[in-house]
Amino acid sequence: MGTSGMAQTPRPPYYAVIFTSIRTPGDQGYAETSDRMAELASAQAGFLGAESVRAPDGFGMTVCYWESAEAIAAWKAQAEHLIAQQRGKRDWYEHYEVRVARVERAYSWTAPTP
Amino acid sequence: MGTSGMAQTPRPPYYAVIFTSIRTPGDQGYAETSDRMAELASAQAGFLGAESVRAPDGFGMTVCYWESAEAIAAWKAQAEHLIAQQRGKRDWYEHYEVRVARVERAYSWTAPTP
Repeated sequence: MGTSGMAQTPRPPYYAVIFTSIRTPGDQGYAETSDRMAELASAQAGFLGAESVRAPDGFGMTVCYWESAEAIAAWKAQAEHLIAQQRGKRDWYEHYEVRVARVERAYSWTAPTP
Repeated sequence: MGTSGMAQTPRPPYYAVIFTSIRTPGDQGYAETSDRMAELASAQAGFLGAESVRAPDGFGMTVCYWESAEAIAAWKAQAEHLIAQQRGKRDWYEHYEVRVARVERAYSWTAPTP
């Protein structure tokens, strides 16, 4: 997902999908599809936000937040996303892990303005 | 946490602490303490692994995995970690979010060797 920066999420409980991956070398259409998937995900019912970072060595982490396990299942089965998942296995990822977790509590901190 | 690459975690359930942050400019002793915290965390009871990436713009994500909510509470209260948390607020972070989540299911995929 192309989303950068912090996600604004509601009070727990909600769900997180923790996606960690190692990219293959080269783009091979990845950036375009990644942007499209971020756009599609954010239009899905129950989508709450996403955060994503990738290191220069190819290791990346994306966490997407969802209202429910049902919303996650619907996104996983979305037609264009299914095609992207197949391309991911064929072209873009050497390895990935998906962890589905229920966020039970959350807190934040912001530096006081100087 | 300085850990790079993928964490090897057991079959769920287990816990994840999703820590997203925006760094202040400059190091200010951050890298040294980050390495020390990774070393200390990995010696804590119930620690399962950690994954971490930071983008050049200062936005970073770290996910630590733990056997239980009790193990997370013990790490949060660890003496040297408490001091690091205070320094984090004073020197290292403009903003952070902490989300504690229970991992309910997980799966992975590895590209076939060519």
